Amino acid sequence: MIVDHLQAPYYAVIFSTVLSDTLKGYEETANRMEELAAQQPGYLGMESARSQLGITVSYWESLDAIMQWKNNVAHTEARDKGREIWYKKYQLRICKVEREYGFESL
Amino acid sequence: MIVDHLQAPYYAVIFSTVLSDTLKGYEETANRMEELAAQQPGYLGMESARSQLGITVSYWESLDAIMQWKNNVAHTEARDKGREIWYKKYQLRICKVEREYGFESL
Repeated sequence: MIVDHLQAPYYAVIFSTVLSDTLKGYEETANRMEELAAQQPGYLGMESARSQLGITVSYWESLDAIMQWKNNVAHTEARDKGREIWYKKYQLRICKVEREYGFESL
Repeated sequence: MIVDHLQAPYYAVIFSTVLSDTLKGYEETANRMEELAAQQPGYLGMESARSQLGITVSYWESLDAIMQWKNNVAHTEARDKGREIWYKKYQLRICKVEREYGFESL
């Protein structure tokens, strides 16, 4: 779902991934991380899509909220497992959202 | 393809979309816009994925480069058509990339 109720400035984490061929446990963990992130203070929402490339963008109130989620124990374990098993390659970008435009057809 | 050669700070445009049921001409125009964007001064790269939601992130040297691409005539025409025909809903966010981390498995 598109996250469309936010007011800049806030933060976005763009997580671009290429998966490996070994995906046992991946989807379960990804879903669990989405649930856990949503319980974090300062979490504002998440958008995801996957073709050959996966892109997940999570939105946060502050850099501090992002750092707290980074240091979450379950998240740290999942990230280690991601690097060991599930991800062939990824890029993670921390961004400040400065402006925003929306459109919805009638 | 993941864009992994950039050095923060630079800018990202996160374009999250839900398509309509009328997609005649969409893919052709989307490909053409990707070609045209890549010719713009200040263009740094693009990442795309689509499931139910589509997410395209384009990367740019500056806000000025983003505004020049916004004002490109072919792009403006494509955007108008997008709102009339192809997009049910979209959200566009202009962000400053502040930090970046990458991983690639051996």
